[in-house]
Formats: sequence, structure tokens, C-alpha cells
Amino acid sequence: MAYRAAVVGGSGYTGAELLRLLAGHPAIEVVHVTADSNAGAEVGELYPGLRPAYEGRRYVPYDVTDLAGLDVVFTALPHGASQSVVPTLIERVGHVVDLGADFRLPPATYERWYGRQHDAPALVDRFAYGLVELYRNEISAREHVAVPGCYPTAVSLALAPLLANRVVEPAGLVANAVSGVSGAGRSLQTTSLFSEANENVSAYGLLTHRHTAEMEQALSKVAEQPVDVLFTPHLVPTTRGILATCYARPADTGLSTARLLEDYRQYYASDPCVVVVDEPSGTKATYGANVVHVTVRYDTRTGTVLAIAAEDNLTKGAAGQAIQAANLVLGLPETAGLPLLGVQP
Amino acid sequence: MAYRAAVVGGSGYTGAELLRLLAGHPAIEVVHVTADSNAGAEVGELYPGLRPAYEGRRYVPYDVTDLAGLDVVFTALPHGASQSVVPTLIERVGHVVDLGADFRLPPATYERWYGRQHDAPALVDRFAYGLVELYRNEISAREHVAVPGCYPTAVSLALAPLLANRVVEPAGLVANAVSGVSGAGRSLQTTSLFSEANENVSAYGLLTHRHTAEMEQALSKVAEQPVDVLFTPHLVPTTRGILATCYARPADTGLSTARLLEDYRQYYASDPCVVVVDEPSGTKATYGANVVHVTVRYDTRTGTVLAIAAEDNLTKGAAGQAIQAANLVLGLPETAGLPLLGVQP
Amino acid sequence: MAYRAAVVGGSGYTGAELLRLLAGHPAIEVVHVTADSNAGAEVGELYPGLRPAYEGRRYVPYDVTDLAGLDVVFTALPHGASQSVVPTLIERVGHVVDLGADFRLPPATYERWYGRQHDAPALVDRFAYGLVELYRNEISAREHVAVPGCYPTAVSLALAPLLANRVVEPAGLVANAVSGVSGAGRSLQTTSLFSEANENVSAYGLLTHRHTAEMEQALSKVAEQPVDVLFTPHLVPTTRGILATCYARPADTGLSTARLLEDYRQYYASDPCVVVVDEPSGTKATYGANVVHVTVRYDTRTGTVLAIAAEDNLTKGAAGQAIQAANLVLGLPETAGLPLLGVQP
Amino acid sequence: MAYRAAVVGGSGYTGAELLRLLAGHPAIEVVHVTADSNAGAEVGELYPGLRPAYEGRRYVPYDVTDLAGLDVVFTALPHGASQSVVPTLIERVGHVVDLGADFRLPPATYERWYGRQHDAPALVDRFAYGLVELYRNEISAREHVAVPGCYPTAVSLALAPLLANRVVEPAGLVANAVSGVSGAGRSLQTTSLFSEANENVSAYGLLTHRHTAEMEQALSKVAEQPVDVLFTPHLVPTTRGILATCYARPADTGLSTARLLEDYRQYYASDPCVVVVDEPSGTKATYGANVVHVTVRYDTRTGTVLAIAAEDNLTKGAAGQAIQAANLVLGLPETAGLPLLGVQP
Repeated sequence: MAYRAAVVGGSGYTGAELLRLLAGHPAIEVVHVTADSNAGAEVGELYPGLRPAYEGRRYVPYDVTDLAGLDVVFTALPHGASQSVVPTLIERVGHVVDLGADFRLPPATYERWYGRQHDAPALVDRFAYGLVELYRNEISAREHVAVPGCYPTAVSLALAPLLANRVVEPAGLVANAVSGVSGAGRSLQTTSLFSEANENVSAYGLLTHRHTAEMEQALSKVAEQPVDVLFTPHLVPTTRGILATCYARPADTGLSTARLLEDYRQYYASDPCVVVVDEPSGTKATYGANVVHVTVRYDTRTGTVLAIAAEDNLTKGAAGQAIQAANLVLGLPETAGLPLLGVQP
Repeated sequence: MAYRAAVVGGSGYTGAELLRLLAGHPAIEVVHVTADSNAGAEVGELYPGLRPAYEGRRYVPYDVTDLAGLDVVFTALPHGASQSVVPTLIERVGHVVDLGADFRLPPATYERWYGRQHDAPALVDRFAYGLVELYRNEISAREHVAVPGCYPTAVSLALAPLLANRVVEPAGLVANAVSGVSGAGRSLQTTSLFSEANENVSAYGLLTHRHTAEMEQALSKVAEQPVDVLFTPHLVPTTRGILATCYARPADTGLSTARLLEDYRQYYASDPCVVVVDEPSGTKATYGANVVHVTVRYDTRTGTVLAIAAEDNLTKGAAGQAIQAANLVLGLPETAGLPLLGVQP
Repeated sequence: MAYRAAVVGGSGYTGAELLRLLAGHPAIEVVHVTADSNAGAEVGELYPGLRPAYEGRRYVPYDVTDLAGLDVVFTALPHGASQSVVPTLIERVGHVVDLGADFRLPPATYERWYGRQHDAPALVDRFAYGLVELYRNEISAREHVAVPGCYPTAVSLALAPLLANRVVEPAGLVANAVSGVSGAGRSLQTTSLFSEANENVSAYGLLTHRHTAEMEQALSKVAEQPVDVLFTPHLVPTTRGILATCYARPADTGLSTARLLEDYRQYYASDPCVVVVDEPSGTKATYGANVVHVTVRYDTRTGTVLAIAAEDNLTKGAAGQAIQAANLVLGLPETAGLPLLGVQP
Repeated sequence: MAYRAAVVGGSGYTGAELLRLLAGHPAIEVVHVTADSNAGAEVGELYPGLRPAYEGRRYVPYDVTDLAGLDVVFTALPHGASQSVVPTLIERVGHVVDLGADFRLPPATYERWYGRQHDAPALVDRFAYGLVELYRNEISAREHVAVPGCYPTAVSLALAPLLANRVVEPAGLVANAVSGVSGAGRSLQTTSLFSEANENVSAYGLLTHRHTAEMEQALSKVAEQPVDVLFTPHLVPTTRGILATCYARPADTGLSTARLLEDYRQYYASDPCVVVVDEPSGTKATYGANVVHVTVRYDTRTGTVLAIAAEDNLTKGAAGQAIQAANLVLGLPETAGLPLLGVQP
């Protein structure tokens, strides 16, 4: 018998990706889908590609009483909305898996990077940070999950083995990343228009992107000491895909690319959603799949370590790893319902 | 226990799509993958997205003795190559599912449109034309399948209900279609270069595209009389996706859009891979999925019937419907292993 | 000494294209640029590519008194806005060149296709329809210009020689066209988002697109009898570019592709902005250039005439031909300031 | 009277861009265009967008006697071909402007990075490195020009003011850059196929890309001491455009973004082809234009300097700056014939 689930905020892109993936999940059944401005519309009007599984299904307005007793609720809301929804929801359902930023950081850190007070600080501690590969124990020990941001997933998995093995300095890390436009969601913004984004690559959020805090949090945990990251995101003309190219200074002698690749293979040996590759994969290798492909290099000429990660920002970067973490809290196999092969070409 | 399968020509795009789909098939196992110029390479070198299922698997050169006794062999070869491979293969394996053009048409028709003699004319009759929705009986009655071309699939399914119901004239049909660049395969051609195809739409193959013959064959069968089609293909800057916009003149009075939509719903009521939609779906709704979305209109102002079909040329237009037909000849559920939801956005 | 010009509505895409082209015009100087919601912003904030010519220039709110005495005013406003602006403007400036739909059609036709009353019907007759190749005399005889829509430009120029020479039937014309996303302008619409339009082709406005009226008007003029057109527009993932693929039934015997190509070359012999080509050009050949490339075919097999036109919807389809027509009313060389070479690749 | 010019290798992308730009040059006339495998073809067959200026013009095979006496010859050949062509050419023409890599580096450096012997080492010294903004004096003092590579142009202009002003360390520079696919030229390579590059971002040439040598050469000149650069190029799905995001460690105290932006404005005050911007421009701002847009930041949190440059790799990154340098050696205004406004959107 399947676990009964809801998707709260099912009309955005991460919501739609949850619906696509959960339609094929062997042990989770979506029984309820909410939307706000799109309430009343059919799922298939917004996403005709979902019709074969959701024909006739309509978005309903959010009402916490509809969700009472469900096994798992995925909240895929605009950033900042979860902290007002979760307090009433959390006591009525088995597990909350929140895809927003609200429960990823300690309240003080949240307030510093997001520039606003947190409305439910007491609840933050009930959520595990859902980066399965680095927080598997914490996730198994908690009931609720705060799904990581798309960029921190890629950057943290690119750099984690280096910091865990203490082969690079914890200061001066540089994370240069590009993202497809779906990372900005389905909301209407000029920068998300096709005519603005197409045939264009642009840097944005220089020095201050909020995802920096998550990267530093995850990598500090791995390093067991504070790390700092300079993160520069860019927009590229793809719908999906993040590529993070990261630079670090060696803290060890005798580094070589061969040794680092071997370290990565060992570090991720038990992680079915991380693929360590000799040659850097492009983002297309991860299209629609719940995987991160990573590789690493040591440049003897300039004395720099280079680590690269590719992922689909909507799948492993959001909806896919939400399900990966939900599988853990539900006691299911980690990859249940999750495609691992990219749709390529 | 799974049926044992081979993919002959697994390094091209339809081959790669077969590998992706078959990796998730519950009852078919890929035990052998051949390639020609890429023999010796790992599958994951060409398609890193396939690594999680094919890590370490290498393309081997084609050798018919390796295939003897297999239950099903998918041949995804350059057009014209199958007719030399199939004669030795056909007696040694359970079912040949050929994705080339060689066994789709009677030899005389083949020779007229392809401008060359057929090398294995006696075998053509042993293949059913694999357009499941229109040839389900024929497929069940044969052992081998000639998978339709990508364009004929979309155009035939767009127009079939009109001709079956005799509401349009069999002459003067116009099929205006656009295709993503993957339709040209992975071979090196200037027109397939990113810098040529991007930000560009161009018509090609004016008046003479070979897929015309298949459309006329399938639609004549449905109409039970000869039909003629003027087919104009165009290249658009997408990787995947065909949209066919078709025009026909009414042969009946009292037509209306509502009635035609109802006809389509009835006609395709038992077809899980055809989605009849009120509003025309874009190709993205079919991305990576084994479905065709169709809609229809009657324009009272100009007295014209308009029918539109969207598909993924690599999935329902090639590898997906190859598996759909293979499922039939193997006695499996028609949609076994086939995703029906498009990866959207 | 240069003519003094204003661009009213300079923050949209056609406005920006006017600014780009006029910056290089030898005899027109932009002295004033207005915008509505973007008033106060620098031109270079919205379009950094325009900085070298417009550094420090700011959009100002529209005020007719600022424009008094100018030689030419280009109005590039949302559809429907010109009819309220033009009545006060028209008496104060030398020439109004309007890029909206308001003055393209007789009021009765306008009201039928646009579903609203025209607010300045008495002024419509003072505007010439600015399709230079077909209305050169009318433009020279009027002071003001209504610049054609993007689709009607391509479709009318594709079909005009056929109708002028009476080689095709005036009924049953089919115009199947695709457009880049910039045709929808810079306004915020879900369908214009990158993630919706990318890797997607979709038909829209089935049977009822308003540009149909313009095509029928222009082609009826050329044919000297009423024509009807079924027009089906599609959205493709390019920023710029329209490709119109048109179908007509022959009204003459003895047609051949060679004869039709020769007809086209004669018909457009004096038109520097029409390029007749043997092989169909892709839209990229017109990128950023004030040209239409056209070709034609006669299919003896099905008895159908096929005509294809490619253009850049922002240049020849809007801002470029606005300048082309302005050149005529100002007595300048037709192509002054207008690039004719596409930016290719 | 115009200078008489030839384009040697006019069928590739940089050759086509030269033809496009030179068609609008007020003082240079293209009298001869060669190609190798495309000899005999019309320019307009390969690039229909060039037809209005080159109708009927055919590529001819290279023959040095055809070029004797020309004022300027642009050689746009595959890398490595110039060194065999130039020795016989250089004495017969006024100026050679070579777009290949052969004359950009001292022979020893060339041999180290390109892994082959130089066939004309004695001629290297007769070429000035054509990065006008940093080598203006050298270019005016030489007769011949080696046009910089596309990446080194962007990276060098991004970082030059920092090194000239000695505000950053010369070691540990990181240049992370993305390029559109046209940077790989029109030659047939799998990685340049639309279906491979579209919806994909991938890193390549890790640690060893040959353009590193040019960056280090240009920046060492500016710094007046050796610098080292770790350069990581990436392929993005655009036709044109390079965005270089560069990182450096401060060598000075009291840095601030405001001060650095002011430094950049002063440094490039006399450079019409460099646009210093407060907010980072996307590559689209430079589409088809001979400009680089640059900006800079100082991150107090991590103590890092960030500099970003955007350019069109075919224009300022190749053909445009070739003409910019040719203008200098011919004594023409630096920007003669060069568009500075990007085609945007």
C-alpha cells in the first residue's frame, strides 16, 4: 500500500517536477495538489505533459484540513512562504519535506542572509538538511526535511571530499556556477523571458547570493571547521542544468589528479546518486535525473585544485532529492521512483 | 525472467534512446550493444548520462553469431544498412525490430522514393509496419517490425481519424512539419552544427522528402483509398520534438471543431500513447515520452480542417514506439517500460 | 543636417531595435525617447548593448509638447495605445510612423478582428500601409505610415507575385508560419518565459489570429480581388525570425518552379530589401537585417504551389521597415541606415 | 579610394564575419575571397545572409599570385596553416592580418603550448599582437598583426587594469570562461552538433587550454612581471558570446568596488571598444559588435577581486578586432566600419 502524499504548490516548476516523478513512484501516491493563483485550473492546462497521469486533476487552494493525516507533504512554495504554512501543518502530517529556504539554516544565519526575521524559529531544529550524501544520519534521525538549494547541492558535492580529506584550505574557496533559467521558477520576471535569456550568458547576484550560506554550512560540517566560499552564479540559456566549477588551494603536498579521483570514488562509493567521472560531464548527462556527476583535477602548474559538478537543478537540485530524502524518512530504498539516467541527447 | 535483447547500432541517437528506455524496462534486458566506428568505446564515454545503468559496458563490433538466440534485436542503423544485415539475422533471433526505412514500404515504392534497388525484397513482407495505433492487428500477426519514420508517425496520427471517418478529401492534404535537430542523427553534417541550427528555422527537402511515401501508405490504408500528401519539413532549434500542422479540405457537411474533437477521442479511446487535447500541446509536453498529443479544428471561414500532432522524434517517433511494438510482438503490455509523461519544463 | 526624430515607446523590443538602427542612420537623429513604466531608467540599463550610442540617455514620460516640431515620430506602443496618442500628435509633427495595429486596417475591419471600437477612425485614412514593396506609391502619397505586422510582411511578400500574376486561386490560401519569441514583446507572459518556450514548438491563435486581416488586405490589393487566407502561427525557440511557408492552388496551367522563380525575380527586381533565392533561406540569414528572403516551388505531383519567406520580425518585420517607410516619406534613399546582411552565424 | 583587401579562408565563421563587417567598411574593399574545400561555391550558398553584398561572388582557391599588391590580407585559416602561407605572402602585400594562433607567441612559447615546431619562427617578430587596447603602440610600429584568440581578449581586458595598477597578486589568477559554439568554427566535430551542445554546459580543456599562454603573455606585459593564470573554458549553448569571470587576490589594502570601477573607467577612457559598466552585462549586449563590456568587484567578505568581461567571440574576439587593428596599421580611425551596438534582444 502506498504512502499518501500531497504537493503543496504544485503549479511551479519544482511542483511540476514532483508530480512527474511521483507519478512513477512505486510506494508514494499523490492524493492532493494545491496551488494558489492557479487553483481551479487542471494540472494538464499548465503542464500538458502530465496529462497521462493527471488527466482531470485540478489544483485546489491550500487548506491544512485537507492534508491532515497524510504521510508526507512536499511544500514547494515561494521562498519565505513555508515558515507561515509549516507551523499549522507540521503537527497534522507524518513528514514535511520543504523545498524552500526557510528551514535550511539556523535562524540567525537565515536572518543575516535573507534580511528578514524568521517567523517560526523554534521549528527549524526539527528539520534535517536534506543533502542526503552529507547528512544521511541526520535525515534518518529527524522527521522533517529541508531540501537544499540547487546551487548548494552541486557546489557542496563538488567540494566535500576535498574538505573531508583536508587536502584543501578551508578559506578562499571559489564556486563559479551556471544555471538554467528554470532555477528562477515560473514567476514572471524580465530576466526569465526567452528573448532576454537566449543567446546570452550573464553573471548575477555578485558577492551576495543567499545560497552561499548553505554552501558554507554544508562544507563547514564536512571540514569540521569554518570554510568560506565566494560564489558567483550565472544564467545560461538552458531550461535545466547547473554546472559548478570550483577552485581551491591545496593544504597538502603530493596531490595529483589520479589520487583525487580515487578519493572521490571512495568518498561516494555508497552513493547511488553521485557519479564520479574521469572526464567532466556536461549538464545534459543529468537531464531529468536525480544524479550529480563530479570530477576533480590538480593543476601542478598553478597549484590549484579544480572540482566540477553537474546536475539538473529541478531534479537532484530540488524535486528529485526531495523524494530521495523522503524515501529515507519513510524507510524506502533511497532511489525509489527516481530516474538516474539523463535524457540525452 | 526477462527477454534478452540487443541493440545493433547503439551509438547513434535512436540507439542511445533505446538504451535509456530499455534500462528501465521490467521485462527486457539489454545483453549486447554494437557499434561500428565507436566499437571499443564505453557507452558512458558517448553518453555519460547512461553511466548509472551501463557503467563499464563497451560497444562491440556487429557479429551476427553474438546475437544468435536472442529474443529481440533492435537494429538502429543508418538508412540502407538494415537490408544487408537483416537477411542473416532474421533466422537466428526471435524478433527483429528495425528502426531504419528498409522494411517500411513495398520494394517498388521503396525504390521509387529512395532511388536505389532493395537488396532484400523478399523479406519486406515479413515485417509489419510498426505504427501501433493504426497497425495493431498486423503487428500482432507478424514476427518482425519496421518502425515508422518520425515524421510519418506524427502526420499519420494527426490525420487518421479524419480519413477513417471520411470527413476530408483524400487529395490535397498538406503536412507542414518542424523537427528538432536530433532527427538528423549524430552523424557530422554542417546543417546539424549548433551554430547553423541555432536561432534559425529553415525548410528543407521541398516536395521530395522520402517520408511522404510512408504517410501516404498509412493514410491510404486508413482511408481505404489512395491519398496524396504534400509534405514540407523544417528544421527548428530544438534537440527533440516534431510538430506536424496538417491541412485538409472537408468532404462532409456539418463539420465543427467540437464534433471533430469528439471523433478523435473516440478514435483513440483505446490508445494509451495518444493524448487528444482541446488546446494544441507544444512539443515539450512530449519530451522523452512515448506519446503523441493531437488536436483538430474546423475553420468555417475558409472551409479547412486543421489537425496538429506533437511528439518526441526520438521516443514515440523512433525508440519508444520500437519498444511499444516490441511489447506487442512479445506479448507484453503495450506501454511496458515506456514513460508517458513529458519532461516539462 | 539630420532629420530630428523621437521614439515613443522606446523600452520595448521594437523600440530598442529602432534605437539600434537609428544610431547608425546617416540622416535621422534620435532626439527624444519615451517610455511609460520604465521612464527614468537609462536606455543602457534595459539594453546595455545600446550604451555606446546612448550612454546616459534616459527614458522620459510621454508628453506631446516635447515632440512638437519633430520631423518624424516613431510610435512603438502596445497595440491599441496609438489610437489615443496619435490624434494629438499628428498635427504637431511632420510624420507619424506607427508600429502598432491601429492604423493598418479600415475601421470596420479593425473592429471585426480586434473586437473593439476604433477611437480615431477619421485618422486611419491619413496613414499609408507601410509595406514598401507593395504600397510604395501609397506611401509616397501620404504623410503618415502604419507599419505592417511582422507576420503579414512575410506572408504577403511570399505570395504577392503569385496573386499579381494570377497564377494561383485567391481562395484556399494557407499560411503556416513560425515566429521567434521576441514577436510577443518584452511584456511579462508565461508563454514568453525561457523555460516554457525553449525546446518547444507550439501552435497558437488557431483560426483567429488578427494578422490574418492584414494579409488578406494586402494580397487582395495585389490580386485585385478578394482573397482568403487560413493563417496558423507557431512559436519557436528563437529570439528573432519568422518563416512563412505558404500553400496555394494553381489557377494556371504550365506552371513550373523555374518559371515561378523567374516571375519572383522580375516582380522584386527593384526591391533592395527582397532577396529571391533558389534554395530556401533559413531565418538566420536575415538576423538583424531589413530583408525578406523568398523562394517558390510548384509541385507537379500534388498540384500545389509552395512559397516561403524568411525575415527578422524585429527588423524587416517591424523597426527596419518602419525606417524603410520613413526614408520614403522623408525623401531619403529607401535603404538609408538599414543593414541588409544578416548576422550569420 | 578604398584599400584593396582579400579574405583568405572566407568560408569559416571568422571569414564570414570579416565579409559581413567589411561589406560596410567605408575605406576597405574586399576584392578577393578564397576558400579551400568550398572553392567554387558561391559565398551566398554558405551564407545566404551575405547575398545582398556578395551576390554571385564565388570562393576561389588560394593562389598567392592573386593577392600580390593588395593593401591588406586577412588570413582566417585553421590553426597551424598560417605559418605555411605567410612566408610567401608577407613580401607581396602591404599588411597581413592573421587570425590564427601562429604569430601570437614567441616560437618557444608556441612550441611548448601547441606541441609542434614553428615553421616560420623568423617571421613572428614582424607581427604585433593585435589586442589594440594593450598593444596600440606595438601595432602602430609594425606592419603585420597577429589577432588575439577569443578567450585571451576577454580575459586580458577583464584583468589588465588590476595588474597595471598592481592591486592584485600576479600569481593565482583564475579565469573561468564560457563560450558559444561558434568558437569551435564551422568544422565538423561531434561536440559542435546542435544535439550535443543544446541544453548543455560542459567544461573542457581542463588545465591545458592553449589560450592560457596568450593571457599570461598579455597580462605579464601589463604587469611588468610574470603572471600565471588557471584558465577553465566551458561550452554553452549560444552561437556567439564569451563571458569571462576572473578571480584575483588583492595585493593592496583599501580596495573597494567603487575605487576599482573608477580605475577601470580611467584605464579604458580612450578605448572606444571597451565599455565599463556598473552592473555586469550579459554577452547578448555585445552580439555582432566590436566591444568588450567589463565590470569589477571587491569582495570584502572573502578578500577576493572579481572581474567580468563579455564579448562576441566572432567580432571583438576575432574578425572585428582584426579590422580594428587593420584600421590602425592603415592609418584609419580605429572603429571605422565597426558596429559597437549589440543586436539586442
